[in-house]
Amino acid sequence: LHTQITYGILGGGSWATALAKMLTDNGHNINWYIRDKHNIELFQQRGHNPHYVSSIYFDVQKIHFSTSTVEVIEKSTTIIIAIPSAFVLNTLEALPKGICNGKKIISAIKGIIPPQHILLNEYLYAHHHVQPEQYAIVAGPCHAEEVASERLSYLTFAAHNVQDAQMYAKHFATPYIKTVVNADVDGAQYAAVLKNIYAVGAGIAHGLDYGDNFMSVFIAGAADEMAGFLRAVAPTNHTTINYAASVYLGDLLVTCYSLHSRNRRFGNYLGKGYSVQSAQLEMNMVAEGYHASKGIFEKNKTLQANIPIAEAIYKILWQQMNVKQAFKLIENILT
Amino acid sequence: LHTQITYGILGGGSWATALAKMLTDNGHNINWYIRDKHNIELFQQRGHNPHYVSSIYFDVQKIHFSTSTVEVIEKSTTIIIAIPSAFVLNTLEALPKGICNGKKIISAIKGIIPPQHILLNEYLYAHHHVQPEQYAIVAGPCHAEEVASERLSYLTFAAHNVQDAQMYAKHFATPYIKTVVNADVDGAQYAAVLKNIYAVGAGIAHGLDYGDNFMSVFIAGAADEMAGFLRAVAPTNHTTINYAASVYLGDLLVTCYSLHSRNRRFGNYLGKGYSVQSAQLEMNMVAEGYHASKGIFEKNKTLQANIPIAEAIYKILWQQMNVKQAFKLIENILT
Repeated sequence: LHTQITYGILGGGSWATALAKMLTDNGHNINWYIRDKHNIELFQQRGHNPHYVSSIYFDVQKIHFSTSTVEVIEKSTTIIIAIPSAFVLNTLEALPKGICNGKKIISAIKGIIPPQHILLNEYLYAHHHVQPEQYAIVAGPCHAEEVASERLSYLTFAAHNVQDAQMYAKHFATPYIKTVVNADVDGAQYAAVLKNIYAVGAGIAHGLDYGDNFMSVFIAGAADEMAGFLRAVAPTNHTTINYAASVYLGDLLVTCYSLHSRNRRFGNYLGKGYSVQSAQLEMNMVAEGYHASKGIFEKNKTLQANIPIAEAIYKILWQQMNVKQAFKLIENILT
Repeated sequence: LHTQITYGILGGGSWATALAKMLTDNGHNINWYIRDKHNIELFQQRGHNPHYVSSIYFDVQKIHFSTSTVEVIEKSTTIIIAIPSAFVLNTLEALPKGICNGKKIISAIKGIIPPQHILLNEYLYAHHHVQPEQYAIVAGPCHAEEVASERLSYLTFAAHNVQDAQMYAKHFATPYIKTVVNADVDGAQYAAVLKNIYAVGAGIAHGLDYGDNFMSVFIAGAADEMAGFLRAVAPTNHTTINYAASVYLGDLLVTCYSLHSRNRRFGNYLGKGYSVQSAQLEMNMVAEGYHASKGIFEKNKTLQANIPIAEAIYKILWQQMNVKQAFKLIENILT
């Protein structure tokens, strides 16, 4: 059916599962790495991912599951990396050299990879010789829960290789997914990182009992700050880029406003007075915005963009700055 | 205390009441036109506006109420016009010629004045010889309900006369109101009109059961379309204007997302299948976005900006276009 392309997915979480639904709904057979053998067995028995967006049912005949990343990569032409950025390094470091030769990579990661605070393409280039032409990214605004219920969502595929982006856009488009292509690979990745930081901020503001009026000013300020950072970090592209497009402003809005947003929920705990550690414990997870704020802070030491909102969130998360004090500072930045 | 400036307010609704709170909290005595004598009596007896944001209590000693617009204008140096745009013409047409001579005007209107579909400054210039230097506007994002509860909000004062804008900004700033100044008088007024149209659209989308993912893409598309219209309608200013500021993007966001938004609520009824007439009956009011969509549609006949979203909302509201069909068109515009 789809000739030469075989997709392999690395990662067993919500976003990986939503992407798998789109491909299998479009008739693709896929290879899928999920770390835990028991979860694969449950998935095969029940026809759904036992732990994430389990309302999505699959024809498991279309899926070749494996606990081996190497096997999935070798059997596939196009590898979708959908492991949370905080954990992806463990997986990538274990890969044999040369395994990415001739493969196409689609990053579904929303984050910067610690401890070096670099983008996935930068890591893969340095460690696995993955060239810009082999690399693409997929980004929202697209909470997996709404993919599960087939509510119309938009995905953007960004790649230096326009034909690849267009092909992916075709393979992932369904009646409930519209797809857009874009050449701003680095900018779109940084937008996906930044929006999680601002969503933590939106959650904090909500937790501190600011109202709808303030929230709108905060998020407008975040959109402006984000556009400034993106112009600085990906300057060759910026004259042709529309920062109001879904992958920039749209993704920021859904992450800041949607109750599906884990980053907003995390921030809300902080605004209500929880410590960072207690909030993480309460949620039983680390929100992406936590590492993102550190990654952007480190990146900006050399970039020197004007991002006082993101830096205030960083100081709350990593330097025990009081949330009320931080927001008094933010109040005076906004216009 | 405040030397030469005496504020007079025309209009007895929520927004007028919120603005009166800011001024009286800052120690200003004000003159206030409210049409209905009985409402003035209740206001004076009870210390609050009986019908709008009645949780705001006033020191009524600071307020000179009148059912005469002429009296309020004559006794004041600076007139705040806060009558809904659909009704303001009745009031303005009844004013004697020359009454605005030497007065300053602050428009708190969010709309274009039918039937000519012009801005308030255009009307006042044509009919009362009000010069650009006499005119300013005040705009949100600022739902009156949150002013009542003193939740931090931002107001923008736009004027050709920068010193006036700065003075108003000082007089309205309180611990719960931060104020910003701006010189984009026409652009800021059109932004206030457009955002109500898009908020009707956001309500329709919600009523049609689109999810958070789509909503974010819709509102990002609206922000982009709005910026394009503003660049076309106020071209001399646009290079220095930040369309992510609170008076543009911020006001759009709060109007589209907040449950206080009457335009969103109106749209929601339409999305659920109510006719325009039934929705208006159910709400016992005409949402500003209804007339705004007509005003912008007429204005754009000559301006020719690319505003397919606003035009689709217009067709729903004024030409019986089916909401589902209209949103199928909108789906394909968004990126």
